[in-house]
Amino acid sequence: MRTQVVIIGGGPSGLLLSQLLLKAGIDAVVLERRTQDYVLSRIRAGILEQGFVNLMREAGIAGRLESEGFVHDGTLIAAGNETFRIDFVERTGTPVVVYGQTEVTRDLYAAREAAGGRIIYETDGVTIHDARTDRPYVTFTAGGTEQRIDCDYIAGCDGFHGVSRQTIPDTVRKEYEKVYPFGWLGILSETPPVDDELIYANSARGFALCSMRNENLSRYYVQCPLSDRAEDWSDDAFWDELKRRIPEEAADKLVTGPSIEKSIAPLRSFVTEPMQWGRLFLCGDAAHIVPPTGAKGLNTAASDIHYLYHALKDHYLEGSDAGIEGYSAKALLRIWKAERFSWWMTNLLHRFPDQTAFDLKMQQAEIAFLRDSDAAQTVMAENYVGLPY
Amino acid sequence: MRTQVVIIGGGPSGLLLSQLLLKAGIDAVVLERRTQDYVLSRIRAGILEQGFVNLMREAGIAGRLESEGFVHDGTLIAAGNETFRIDFVERTGTPVVVYGQTEVTRDLYAAREAAGGRIIYETDGVTIHDARTDRPYVTFTAGGTEQRIDCDYIAGCDGFHGVSRQTIPDTVRKEYEKVYPFGWLGILSETPPVDDELIYANSARGFALCSMRNENLSRYYVQCPLSDRAEDWSDDAFWDELKRRIPEEAADKLVTGPSIEKSIAPLRSFVTEPMQWGRLFLCGDAAHIVPPTGAKGLNTAASDIHYLYHALKDHYLEGSDAGIEGYSAKALLRIWKAERFSWWMTNLLHRFPDQTAFDLKMQQAEIAFLRDSDAAQTVMAENYVGLPY
Repeated sequence: MRTQVVIIGGGPSGLLLSQLLLKAGIDAVVLERRTQDYVLSRIRAGILEQGFVNLMREAGIAGRLESEGFVHDGTLIAAGNETFRIDFVERTGTPVVVYGQTEVTRDLYAAREAAGGRIIYETDGVTIHDARTDRPYVTFTAGGTEQRIDCDYIAGCDGFHGVSRQTIPDTVRKEYEKVYPFGWLGILSETPPVDDELIYANSARGFALCSMRNENLSRYYVQCPLSDRAEDWSDDAFWDELKRRIPEEAADKLVTGPSIEKSIAPLRSFVTEPMQWGRLFLCGDAAHIVPPTGAKGLNTAASDIHYLYHALKDHYLEGSDAGIEGYSAKALLRIWKAERFSWWMTNLLHRFPDQTAFDLKMQQAEIAFLRDSDAAQTVMAENYVGLPY
Repeated sequence: MRTQVVIIGGGPSGLLLSQLLLKAGIDAVVLERRTQDYVLSRIRAGILEQGFVNLMREAGIAGRLESEGFVHDGTLIAAGNETFRIDFVERTGTPVVVYGQTEVTRDLYAAREAAGGRIIYETDGVTIHDARTDRPYVTFTAGGTEQRIDCDYIAGCDGFHGVSRQTIPDTVRKEYEKVYPFGWLGILSETPPVDDELIYANSARGFALCSMRNENLSRYYVQCPLSDRAEDWSDDAFWDELKRRIPEEAADKLVTGPSIEKSIAPLRSFVTEPMQWGRLFLCGDAAHIVPPTGAKGLNTAASDIHYLYHALKDHYLEGSDAGIEGYSAKALLRIWKAERFSWWMTNLLHRFPDQTAFDLKMQQAEIAFLRDSDAAQTVMAENYVGLPY
C-alpha cells in the first residue's frame, strides 16, 4: 500500500490532521491501535481555543460544534470565599468554546467515514522504518496479516505511550518532565452546572474545579493525594469535599446527583525535543503533556496539527519545504509557552505538600494581583484563549 | 521631652516621614543609633518609583533629584546573547528615576537640618513603652544620659535588626521568609555605564546586572555562591565573569576599571505581619525585605511612608482615624504584591542549584513570553514602575 502521509493514532489529533489533508487533496491513512468505540469511551477535557475551532472549520466539520458548543466569554477564579471574573472577550476579543473532546472525536470519525477516508483499526506492532530517508514506510499487523505502507511523511499522533516518540533514538531525544505531587479526582454527573462559566477554586483544602459538558452534564474535580483511589471516594464524600472548597454562594446552589464516571488523573508536565526526526513528526501527547489546569491538552495538539498541516500543504501544493524544516522549532516555541501557562496555573491554584507559609503568601499575592490588574488579566486571558499560531 | 511622633531610625524612610510630617505641621523627633556619616556610607539601590519621587516633591526636597536624577523610560532584558527592551513609558506612561539612595539620604539630612528638625544621633538602648495605650513613650540613652520622649505615635523605621519589630510580641507577630541559595557580588566603579539603561541578564553562568549611579559611576553585579567572599574576587575576575554573562555586544563595549567598592549581599524575602501594634507602626526594612532584583527595597519603604503619612495627617488635620486603623492591611496588600514581583523576577533571572532541566525551560518560556507579549510587558512594567498606592 502507498499513501502520502501515514498518521499513527486515530484520536482527535490524527483524525483532525487526516481531514485537513483530505480537504487539501493530500492522501493519508490513519492507523489506530484500538477500536472506534474504545477511542470514543475516553473522557477528556472540553475547552476549545478559537484556533482549534478554526481548524475544525477549515476541515469543514465545525457544524455541530458551532450549534451545540457553549461559548464562554470568561471564567471565575475563587480564593476562599472571594470570587472574581476574567472576561476573555473584553481582554482579548476572543471566547473559548465548551464542547467535549468525545464529541470532537465523534464528529471527526463521522466526517472521515462520510469522505471514505482510510482508517485501519486494531493495528498491532506498528513500526516506523527509514524515517530519516526520503522513502519511509510503516509496518504493522491488522486483521491477522502483516502489512506495509510506503509514504512520504509520518505523523506521530499516537500519544504518550505510542511508538512514534520511541522511534527517535535516545541519543537524539531530550525529555523534560515535572510530576506534581497530587492528582485530580473527577466526576461526571447528569446535573446542571453550578454556574454558566467554569470556577477555578484555590482553597485551603486544595484545588477544585467546576466544569461542564452541557446544561445537564457537569464535570467537577478536587485535588487529591496520589495515594487515593477513586473507588474509595463515595459520591457523598466527593460532593462534601467539593462544597468545602468552593465559595459558599456556589456551594449553596450546587446540584448534586449520582456520578456516572469517577476517576483520578495524575498531573504531569512533559515535553520531548525535537518534535521531528527526518520525515517523522510528533504531534500532541506523543510529544508533550500538560497538567489539566488551564485545559491546554487538546489545544496544544491542535497547535501542532496547525503547523504540520500547513507545512505539508506548503510542501505538496506550493513546493516549499520551509514549514517542514521549521516544524519542530515553530511547534515547540508555542508548546513551551502553553506548558508555562499550565504550570503557572497549576502552581497558582493547588496546595503543595512542601509549600512554606511564604509560598502560600506568594500564591495569595499573585491571586490578588490578578484580581486587581487589568494587564495581569489580559495575560491570563490571552493564554487561556490561546496564544496566536 | 514630648513630641507627636517618635521616629525610630534615621535612614531614608524615617527622614522622609519626618519631613512630610514637618510640612504638615506635625511634630516629630528622629532617633538614630549611628552617626550621620555612618548612615551616608551605606551603599544601596538607586532606582526610584514615581511614587517615591512624588513623596520627595510633597516634602519639598525633590530639587536635586529632579535636576541630577536620570529618567529611565525602559530597561533591557538579556537571555544569552538575545536582548529585548521593555518600555515603561509606552506600557504605563511612567518612567523610573536613577538616583542613589545615598543621595536621597543626603538631601533628606540637609532638609531636616535647614528646617531645624530634631534628630538625636548615637542613641542607645532604645525601648518602646506602652505602645498599646494612648500614652506611649520611648526611652534611650544619648550623650551619656538616660532620656524619655512621650508621644502619640511611634514609627518604627529602624530596619531589619531594629528594636521596633521585636517590640511586637512573638505571639502576635507572624513572620514569612525565603532565603535564596545565592548572593549578589556587586562592585562600584568610576567608569561610564555600559548602556543608557539597566541590563538584567539571565545567562547559563548565572544572573548579572548592569546598573549605574551616573555617567561616570557604574554599578555591576553577578550572582555568586553564598560561600564566596568578596575579597577573594579580584577586579579582573569580576570583569571577566561579568563579560561572560552579558550579551557579546554589551561585553565588547564594557569599560572596566578599578572597583571603589566590592561586596556580597545575600538575597532574602521577608515579611512580618501585622505592621502595626497599638500605636507602633513598622515601616520599610523593619517590616519587610525584598531580594534586590527589581529594585523594590527603598520603594516598598516609600509605600509604607505614604500610607503612614496620610494616616497621621488624617488623624491630626482631619480628625479621622480610618487610616491609622487600616494602616497594616493597606500597607501589606501593596507590600505582598511587591514581594511577589521581586520573587518572580529573582526566579526568572537566576540559576538555582536545584533547578531541573524542566525548571530551566520554564524560565526560558517565561522570558520568550515576556519578549513576545504586550500584556506580559505591561505587567512587568507596571510592577517595575510601582503599583498604584
